[in-house]
Amino acid sequence: MSKGITKRSENYSQWYNDLVVKADLAENSAVRGSMVIKPYGFAIWEKIQAQLDKMFKETGHENAYFPLFIPKSFFSKEAKHVEGFAKECAVVTHYRLKATADGKGVEVDPDAKLEEELIVRPTSETIIWNSYKNWIQSYRDLPILINQWANVVRWEMRTRLFLRTSEFLWQEGHTAHATKAEAIEETIKMVNVYAEFAENFMALPVIKGTKSENERFAGALETYSIEALMQDGKALQSGTSHFLGQNFAKAFDVKFTDKEGKLDYVWATSWGVSTRLMGALIMAHSDDNGLVLPPKLAPFQVVIVPIYKSQEELDKITNKANEIMALLRAKDITVKYDGRDTHRPGHKFAEYELKGVPVRIAIGPRDLEQNNVEIARRDTLEKKIYSQDNIADTISGLLADIQENIYNKAHKFREENTFKTNSYQEFKDILENKGGFILAHWDGTPETEEKIKAETKATIRCIPIDAEEEDGKCIFTGKPSKRRVIFAKAY
Amino acid sequence: MSKGITKRSENYSQWYNDLVVKADLAENSAVRGSMVIKPYGFAIWEKIQAQLDKMFKETGHENAYFPLFIPKSFFSKEAKHVEGFAKECAVVTHYRLKATADGKGVEVDPDAKLEEELIVRPTSETIIWNSYKNWIQSYRDLPILINQWANVVRWEMRTRLFLRTSEFLWQEGHTAHATKAEAIEETIKMVNVYAEFAENFMALPVIKGTKSENERFAGALETYSIEALMQDGKALQSGTSHFLGQNFAKAFDVKFTDKEGKLDYVWATSWGVSTRLMGALIMAHSDDNGLVLPPKLAPFQVVIVPIYKSQEELDKITNKANEIMALLRAKDITVKYDGRDTHRPGHKFAEYELKGVPVRIAIGPRDLEQNNVEIARRDTLEKKIYSQDNIADTISGLLADIQENIYNKAHKFREENTFKTNSYQEFKDILENKGGFILAHWDGTPETEEKIKAETKATIRCIPIDAEEEDGKCIFTGKPSKRRVIFAKAY
Repeated sequence: MSKGITKRSENYSQWYNDLVVKADLAENSAVRGSMVIKPYGFAIWEKIQAQLDKMFKETGHENAYFPLFIPKSFFSKEAKHVEGFAKECAVVTHYRLKATADGKGVEVDPDAKLEEELIVRPTSETIIWNSYKNWIQSYRDLPILINQWANVVRWEMRTRLFLRTSEFLWQEGHTAHATKAEAIEETIKMVNVYAEFAENFMALPVIKGTKSENERFAGALETYSIEALMQDGKALQSGTSHFLGQNFAKAFDVKFTDKEGKLDYVWATSWGVSTRLMGALIMAHSDDNGLVLPPKLAPFQVVIVPIYKSQEELDKITNKANEIMALLRAKDITVKYDGRDTHRPGHKFAEYELKGVPVRIAIGPRDLEQNNVEIARRDTLEKKIYSQDNIADTISGLLADIQENIYNKAHKFREENTFKTNSYQEFKDILENKGGFILAHWDGTPETEEKIKAETKATIRCIPIDAEEEDGKCIFTGKPSKRRVIFAKAY
Repeated sequence: MSKGITKRSENYSQWYNDLVVKADLAENSAVRGSMVIKPYGFAIWEKIQAQLDKMFKETGHENAYFPLFIPKSFFSKEAKHVEGFAKECAVVTHYRLKATADGKGVEVDPDAKLEEELIVRPTSETIIWNSYKNWIQSYRDLPILINQWANVVRWEMRTRLFLRTSEFLWQEGHTAHATKAEAIEETIKMVNVYAEFAENFMALPVIKGTKSENERFAGALETYSIEALMQDGKALQSGTSHFLGQNFAKAFDVKFTDKEGKLDYVWATSWGVSTRLMGALIMAHSDDNGLVLPPKLAPFQVVIVPIYKSQEELDKITNKANEIMALLRAKDITVKYDGRDTHRPGHKFAEYELKGVPVRIAIGPRDLEQNNVEIARRDTLEKKIYSQDNIADTISGLLADIQENIYNKAHKFREENTFKTNSYQEFKDILENKGGFILAHWDGTPETEEKIKAETKATIRCIPIDAEEEDGKCIFTGKPSKRRVIFAKAY
């Protein structure tokens, strides 16, 4: 098959789009800004969901479901939140269609106008805290540790598959606590869960940190994020966890009686990751030949392709493949056999390379004779002959090695593209010529960040949690600074 | 705890609502017609989802995701479909809010009016077939076997938690086939999957059949359904599977080249079940004490409650409970230990009875001494002393027995409330005084069904697949009929 993927060096953005479409992950739909997630792409998302859901449950969270629609007035209740979210929203104004006069089409029934418009949720703090109000009376009702898997809509004019779409899928955790300390602990716990997931499952090294005021979630006192570096030197925010203080409790009047009988507002957090993670996964590891998937998130980890001339050869190979598949499945390795007679092996090889299947096994008549198989790794494109003896152990070891290798490669790339500078001129040079993360001093003011952004398009990605104390001067104003922050251009 | 549940005999409808709310399954939200599914209710839905998803995948289906919004014009493309679905819909007309002049609230920005209104999907045939058009060229691209888990909105004026809400959660399968025979086979396969799920997991006996023309899905040539009988003698349609013929392929111009090189329209099916299943599950088995959950769908199957006076006693019981839990979990039995010191055992007993936990284990100091536990079954409310020896086998056997007993009870109820009649007078008497399923002859015309419905509120629930051929006369018109159909009042 001809892959027709643009090279990264030619046009990174086009490469990304080619990959998403040709690897059958997603496509644009007839509805502007909304995508269709195709089965192969959705299978990756299901793996992401399953693992995160497990981690959320292991940390004590339960799932629930809140309404898609939010009354317009709810958005006015939290002052900062209204600025951040009550903007580019899908607004439901009517609840009925009727046949047009000519009977051929449908039109909105003007008699079915809603008294109060409904907003398709861009995020659910308001509707959820409106419910929590009725659930919380005393400290005994706390904490509430709830997560929701849902679709949300934020109207976007310029969209990119997975990275920025008007409708996207995500999870949003919303927790309620009796104390500030407990809520902060939860906020940090969840950014740690995200980082662990990104590193151990997506093979994606991330930096954990807090957001500057400018980049904070609308309504949060503190936003933690995980930031990853893509191959074009741009940062991608991959998950956020917000300490919301008592803002939403005050907006929705959610009070509780503490152990001493004192009435106080409840403390809140929220945290989320979305189908944007798919974009990070694709961009971080893939190459000009197609997707490179970490084995832990690949819809199937191994594909077996028979090489044969006669039906007799095929039958023998199929028998052997069935044996091997049983051994692999016994070790929880997912495997697919591609015995299609409508496509040649070369076409199949190209297809699975494009789709990022971590390990490809080819079996021909000579392999059968010699008790061998040919194994190709997707990450290095290396091909090697292995014995059929202990095949499950061989593959299991290879998959672990690939997972590690992909992580290491991404980590090395980030190391090589993280720069430390004390000069604004050098800062601008790096941004212009190399991209990457830049560790620089900043005076801590929103104004300076704004000015740097206006001149360079770079923003503060985060103030790393583990940043060392270091006296320095802001690269832009020269004012004193206590630690370096990470600047980058971002998706 | 005081349960405050209305008795079924007093007010069945109120009993249902009390149960849903007091057992923490769901509640009404601030958005008219939309519910909040609370963690305990959602945990049941997750069990339903997980099992169905497994069965869909075992029958060759993959998941995908299509847009929430559908362009208004799509609804006019299939003539029958527009009548059925382009009515009570949520309509998005604008994509932006702005601050009000006083700066205190938000209002819809009149400049952000959409050129074409978007409909929040009431079902996704149109948007999906619009995508399939680009996916299908040849018979090699078929079949497409896709399922989607999603939220949908059908505006409702009179809503009831789970049974009828404006927004609900469901799955919708949408398949595309090269031949009529294959599409019909798929339609029947999926109604069988639903029936198997209802009977083996929900412990809900169902009747499989085809719908009369009046009750058919808008755009379908044939609709299969599973029909269950609730304790108030009303039927609840619990799942439907539609043979759509070539209607949607024609509406969206989806053609394929067959093996002989001939161009033809693609054949379609669609099938779905929704959070309505929660309503069926609750109503079919529960009693005046609360929920009765089949063990296979209970969020946790066993709860252990310690009975103690001193901390020392509690510690010893907790140790024993931990041992027992390890044994149960090794057998994949889900179990919760309720060591809360804020509530008395009696309160806990009532709570788990209300929540339908299949097996309750109580352990007191004397049980420890005598190597016993006290076990209460939720289905029969029977209490019995068992030895701690082989406790996991005991519980495992009990859970299987409860699952079977609940099914048998529901089956017996249905048998006792299924009536055969040849007299319209008796037909009306049964409906008025007993309810239930009525097997009666019908002349096969929509007009007769309409008239019967107008006079009695009963509709044809289905024409059972396994109905015996039997010559008879329509109870209403006296015209000849070949088989009996099932009439009932329905949810």
